Amino acid sequence: MFLAMNRFRVLPGSEAAFEEAWRARDGRLGEMPGFVEFHLLRGPSSDGHTLYASHTIWRDEAAFQAWTTSEQFRSVHRSAGERKVLYDGHPELETFTDVEGV
Amino acid sequence: MFLAMNRFRVLPGSEAAFEEAWRARDGRLGEMPGFVEFHLLRGPSSDGHTLYASHTIWRDEAAFQAWTTSEQFRSVHRSAGERKVLYDGHPELETFTDVEGV
Repeated sequence: MFLAMNRFRVLPGSEAAFEEAWRARDGRLGEMPGFVEFHLLRGPSSDGHTLYASHTIWRDEAAFQAWTTSEQFRSVHRSAGERKVLYDGHPELETFTDVEGV
Repeated sequence: MFLAMNRFRVLPGSEAAFEEAWRARDGRLGEMPGFVEFHLLRGPSSDGHTLYASHTIWRDEAAFQAWTTSEQFRSVHRSAGERKVLYDGHPELETFTDVEGV
């Protein structure tokens, strides 16, 4: 299990636009070899923002890295600039590997 | 989908003890109604620590809340104090709900 989470601090009033932008995108993740599962998650609201996280599970790190250099990745990030969403700072990517699980 | 992540900043040299403590615990999460899946994840190393996260998926927030007041929860956290692990700060709990997914 390889988990890529991108953390977004969305400013008050931009939450609905942020969620709508994700619903409207054409991510095409399902076309990528090694893609397992994607969720957009809403986290806690505090300190003047709401934390959101994209939560994508890949078979392994190689599958994730292949996606970051794919045409699908470039395509979906080209349209990201059109979003009318205000953020507190830049998104923060964190990746995780499985130590153990049940 | 309801995700509870507890973030641990483990100091250099304590990583193996931290992982071993999780392997050795008797979490009994599988006994809890609404429990879906647990993983211990290792994240990036930077700024003098390695980020780990417990990553537990519950059917819904009510199932998670029921666990936090259960005998299983008290039991597993009683033994947490015995761990010979050094942290940078306290663990940080973040919970997330599903906005959308594929």
